[in-house]
Amino acid sequence: MNGGKLVLVVCAGVSLAACSQGRPAANQTAAGPTPSASGAAAEPLMARARQVFKPIPASPPTLPGNEATAAKVELGEMLFFDPRLSASHVISCASCHNLSLGGADAEPTSIGHKWQHGGRNAPTVLNAVFDTAQFWDGRAADLEHQAGGPIVNPVEMASPSEHVAEQLQGIPGYQAAFARAFPGEPNPVSLGNVQKAIAVFEATLITPESPFDRYLNGQADALSPVQKQGLTLFMDKGCSACHSGVGVGGSMYAPFGVVAKPGADLLPPTDKGRFMVTRSPADAYVFKVPSLRNVALTAPYFHTGAVWDLRQAVGVMGASQLGAQLSPDETDKIAAFLTSLTGAQPKVTLPVLPASGATTPRPQP
Amino acid sequence: MNGGKLVLVVCAGVSLAACSQGRPAANQTAAGPTPSASGAAAEPLMARARQVFKPIPASPPTLPGNEATAAKVELGEMLFFDPRLSASHVISCASCHNLSLGGADAEPTSIGHKWQHGGRNAPTVLNAVFDTAQFWDGRAADLEHQAGGPIVNPVEMASPSEHVAEQLQGIPGYQAAFARAFPGEPNPVSLGNVQKAIAVFEATLITPESPFDRYLNGQADALSPVQKQGLTLFMDKGCSACHSGVGVGGSMYAPFGVVAKPGADLLPPTDKGRFMVTRSPADAYVFKVPSLRNVALTAPYFHTGAVWDLRQAVGVMGASQLGAQLSPDETDKIAAFLTSLTGAQPKVTLPVLPASGATTPRPQP
Repeated sequence: MNGGKLVLVVCAGVSLAACSQGRPAANQTAAGPTPSASGAAAEPLMARARQVFKPIPASPPTLPGNEATAAKVELGEMLFFDPRLSASHVISCASCHNLSLGGADAEPTSIGHKWQHGGRNAPTVLNAVFDTAQFWDGRAADLEHQAGGPIVNPVEMASPSEHVAEQLQGIPGYQAAFARAFPGEPNPVSLGNVQKAIAVFEATLITPESPFDRYLNGQADALSPVQKQGLTLFMDKGCSACHSGVGVGGSMYAPFGVVAKPGADLLPPTDKGRFMVTRSPADAYVFKVPSLRNVALTAPYFHTGAVWDLRQAVGVMGASQLGAQLSPDETDKIAAFLTSLTGAQPKVTLPVLPASGATTPRPQP
Repeated sequence: MNGGKLVLVVCAGVSLAACSQGRPAANQTAAGPTPSASGAAAEPLMARARQVFKPIPASPPTLPGNEATAAKVELGEMLFFDPRLSASHVISCASCHNLSLGGADAEPTSIGHKWQHGGRNAPTVLNAVFDTAQFWDGRAADLEHQAGGPIVNPVEMASPSEHVAEQLQGIPGYQAAFARAFPGEPNPVSLGNVQKAIAVFEATLITPESPFDRYLNGQADALSPVQKQGLTLFMDKGCSACHSGVGVGGSMYAPFGVVAKPGADLLPPTDKGRFMVTRSPADAYVFKVPSLRNVALTAPYFHTGAVWDLRQAVGVMGASQLGAQLSPDETDKIAAFLTSLTGAQPKVTLPVLPASGATTPRPQP
């Protein structure tokens, strides 16, 4: 997952291509008032913002090759909440992507199998579907590939990959749920289908209707005067060169420390970020630019989770990425704008899971 | 908490007093058809069962001295799901009382702070409000007193008791929620009020409308013929001498091993049960008779969580408590009856919790 953590970067060469993503599509205004010519004319800032950002659509995007049937979304929700996908039967996707806490876990790094500490801060699952790739280093192309990672990672859920299907086959009730979600498949209970089902559920976890979305959709008073000043600063100072599009981030990679490398507390030398994926020296200390959607809900910030104060995070970004010493007033205004990115949180009714029983492989806690 | 685990006991002197609890009250039939004289006459088994058991009411019982206002129930639900009540910010009430898994955690014993293993199997929170006392040894008088236990237990959530209010005061948003739930109190954010709010939420976690409830309420075909044979055996063999009332258990204490002490795997000599509470030699290896409501959802069974198969648990109880070697056919029928105790699971929409931020005391994971 990725998103909701704060990284602002200065990036040469990000201009028309990135900005072209910022225009709201005509069919994505159902969630708010239709942008009117008069509204745009009355508010030059709104017209400018629409060149850079895009509102969250009212309904989830489709995933290529992975149709979101009701049965598949329902199964994905069950699996997302089922701790029996972990070796211990203690940890579920929802443990670190807590939908009561903005889709993250309010920890610097997550606690995994046998209380091991994860390597990087858990990004929010909310709106992750809009990201260009998943994980801080982009090593998974999409939600479906991401979902297979933590389940089998020995530091996280620690299920041997060959055990996942065996575990679920041992829980009466899942066979029928998989058959409904993947009709016609002779052996639907598989790790691959677990990933597909979780991905279509996670794609539903979008947060439209934030004040900023309503503003982009034409409601001029959806942002306060201070938030509008913050939005102006966010664009003028260069934050939006990378934090753009529907996710206000999540669409590209950038080095952490463009102008000034932060200290080892924020950028430990041992974690070289995307270099671990590409082995390209140019990717050393490069990370995905996270989405800032719901960022006010997802402290602590950065891949280390070392900063708890949104204002402090804004200051760090200004200094390290933009070479800008933001004044307290500027920092306050940008932070006020960022709070306008908090959208309607998904309404999730807890699934009732099929019970463990005599035939269920035992937990290994 | 208590309930949902299987202990059947033989108890001398349990007769009229206990059985008098079994009559359905006239005002508790709203959830199903009104018992009719003709229905009862048509089904002598139903009339007999009504002398011993009582249906779950359609709405939660009230808690003396702890009024269930909407604001208090809402706050209680937030706290039930908030992992920041634990020292690590990883473990919530819902971690071990998972409402997707019958209100328990499908572990022999729960995993707590720093992956410590709990001493006894986590009982379900569902219908726990009907129990005569809480915990396997009854050391908490009610839900309110129980709720304070795991939060501060070093093996479970491990929050120092004086830290709980401090933690919540550091999370913007909780102050207003406590003020709404406890109007007029000058300092509503307190551990005591946390317990009160959680208790009123937990009291809503009842599961009416099981097949057995519908049967007690007059629907003769709510139980299958095999389940009726199982119910008959359950009463004839003596199980219902202790597993009676609204909870089908939960209303009294009994020694584990009345006729024959089970092995150390089921009854470790080091855990003397209620003796630890009363220090009375008569209470050595005495435990609360758990409710059997939703027992088919809450494997593994017994205070050790050592048995995963409901049929095996029935067999152990027959031998150790009743001195009865149940035949495979009798065991099957009793187990079939027990599956009729699975009721409508509570529909719970995940609460959205106030975010951690700059002023929030940090987790100690």
